Amino acid sequence: MSVYALGVGMTRFTQQPDRSPQMLGAAAGAAAMADAGLRREQVGALFCGSVFGGIGIGQLIARELGMSRLPVVNLENACASSGVALRNAIAWVASGGVETALVIGVEQLTARGPGLVKSDSQGPSEQLGLTLPGLYAMHAQRYLAESGGAVEDLALVAVKNRGNGAMNPDAHFQAAVTVEQVLESPMIATPLTRLQCCPSVDGAAAVAISSARSAGDSPAARGIAITGWGMVSGNALDVPGSEPEATRLAGDLAYEVAGVGPDDIDVAELHEPFTIAELEHCESLGFAARGEALNRLREGSFALDGNVAVNPSGGLLSRGHPLGASGAAQIVEIVRQLRGDAADRQVPGARIGLAHIMGGNITEIDSSACTVHVLCA
Amino acid sequence: MSVYALGVGMTRFTQQPDRSPQMLGAAAGAAAMADAGLRREQVGALFCGSVFGGIGIGQLIARELGMSRLPVVNLENACASSGVALRNAIAWVASGGVETALVIGVEQLTARGPGLVKSDSQGPSEQLGLTLPGLYAMHAQRYLAESGGAVEDLALVAVKNRGNGAMNPDAHFQAAVTVEQVLESPMIATPLTRLQCCPSVDGAAAVAISSARSAGDSPAARGIAITGWGMVSGNALDVPGSEPEATRLAGDLAYEVAGVGPDDIDVAELHEPFTIAELEHCESLGFAARGEALNRLREGSFALDGNVAVNPSGGLLSRGHPLGASGAAQIVEIVRQLRGDAADRQVPGARIGLAHIMGGNITEIDSSACTVHVLCA
Repeated sequence: MSVYALGVGMTRFTQQPDRSPQMLGAAAGAAAMADAGLRREQVGALFCGSVFGGIGIGQLIARELGMSRLPVVNLENACASSGVALRNAIAWVASGGVETALVIGVEQLTARGPGLVKSDSQGPSEQLGLTLPGLYAMHAQRYLAESGGAVEDLALVAVKNRGNGAMNPDAHFQAAVTVEQVLESPMIATPLTRLQCCPSVDGAAAVAISSARSAGDSPAARGIAITGWGMVSGNALDVPGSEPEATRLAGDLAYEVAGVGPDDIDVAELHEPFTIAELEHCESLGFAARGEALNRLREGSFALDGNVAVNPSGGLLSRGHPLGASGAAQIVEIVRQLRGDAADRQVPGARIGLAHIMGGNITEIDSSACTVHVLCA
Repeated sequence: MSVYALGVGMTRFTQQPDRSPQMLGAAAGAAAMADAGLRREQVGALFCGSVFGGIGIGQLIARELGMSRLPVVNLENACASSGVALRNAIAWVASGGVETALVIGVEQLTARGPGLVKSDSQGPSEQLGLTLPGLYAMHAQRYLAESGGAVEDLALVAVKNRGNGAMNPDAHFQAAVTVEQVLESPMIATPLTRLQCCPSVDGAAAVAISSARSAGDSPAARGIAITGWGMVSGNALDVPGSEPEATRLAGDLAYEVAGVGPDDIDVAELHEPFTIAELEHCESLGFAARGEALNRLREGSFALDGNVAVNPSGGLLSRGHPLGASGAAQIVEIVRQLRGDAADRQVPGARIGLAHIMGGNITEIDSSACTVHVLCA
């Protein structure tokens, strides 16, 4: 059973409070259908991943797209929402339930103002100061202590990703930065400065998948095979002496299904809401040995022309992080890379790609979701 | 490819503001696993349907159940949330992604107070008076005018379902009522009196499904085959001259997959938040010709010993309606009926059952989701 990504599309990720979630989602969905050469009556089901989209967000998007009388499934798995949406769409396609499905991730964060996260999801841990920046900062401190790295090394993640994002017209930040700029930006939670934290933005991304390699009447569509998938719940962050377990487990599942290993991956989009996260996930996905990601980063292994190009889109740090939309945006980037359509940020000879997204309540044990997908040109 | 319901379980549906969504969900999930003879390590994935469960509700339930490192998928499709969760679980099982999955529907409504619906989802239509009772009342008026029925006839739906619910220990209301009591209860939206409106309650329901007919080491488990499924978005209520289109389309799909028709169904659980809804859906599912459901009801066709027993559990009107949990509770009832385990409310010789649930923004065109499942002993 093969599943193909027939087309992808996204809005720019940026602060755009005047565009409703359904407007954003429909724009991305229409772009993916156009890219695939799919007419709306050829879409058998719609899967919508969103955290704050509200009741029936997928139905509202379907209506904007002029699509009705098809299954519309709304999924919420925090930041991994559209990764989970894709995994579910694959199950429907692989089971023969539908031939072709549209997956949309969407989030409108800024229209609701800065109080969003505080009012909707702040629990006891956050009230004690264990906010996301605080938690990742503690991980960064330990990582640096254990690996012998310096804050300058950590900043290199932001420098790389902002550099990549500068070549991505869909990214929120489109300007390269230096190590000095990263370290001189305001301190958020030591050692993480502001340029090491992803921006909250609005946007949507979409991918049309199918059991057919093309949309039939559209020879222009170039299907990219989705060859592996893995999904688990588990721990999002490493605990002392351990690692981000969910990433390793989901990655191993995806590698097994795809019949590939870490060394085969040419390009990867990883979940890095903060610089430290990219290093941890690179290790859990096998792109570097434990404690070695900083060294590999310094050597250029994760650059566009490195062993595995990590976050060529600019990642969450540069593209921005509209929660439920980020997982789908990763697929958009991987498909563009594997088609050779990534313009100035093209990874040379990219043939096998990987997308990794994670979400959930990271301050609680076993409360995150992680999906990994492997794609092959 | 066959999929079986191996076990079912639910909490009582009633007002229980002291129990959190994760407590309710875990109680139902544990009951379904015990009923199936499944150990938690045998469950390959968890699907959680809820409207107001919050971010990562399925992960919280999994943790309560001591389950981790498995895919946990959270789904929202308004009142149809757990019907959609079941449909997705079937896709995973049918695609070979997992062998066994646990589906949980859960809703905690009363802990948040009566302002819930008003504050979270009231749109312009509701502000103009087009609330759910008002909308269904308009349908009831037209239905009575077109069919020549009387308000006494409409009340018979409540009388039947409250009578059934009186024999269901999991139902919120467990007392039979008379036509007079139904009509003398306070008027909510003419002609719908209070006893014709479902109560808002809290609760959870669960079903364990598998591609295997039993849990292997548990010969006691009696798998009930899920032979048909259909899901569409569309219009929830009929529009003048039309019908509840989503019901007809989803039903037709499920009948086709199962290879049965309306005349084959012995027992059905239908979405009836208000009395009028049961009549409309009976017609759209083919249990009565258009405009004839009232006549069939009067003749006893929908009684426990009728042609097709409709809402033997007591339905939403009697069991209560904890939004995201109602779809799973219907499956619980159908499985119990097809096993012959329904005690005093047992439908004699029930062999084929159907569950129908609908949800979404019914005041908007094309904004609802509907699932229909067919089960066979």
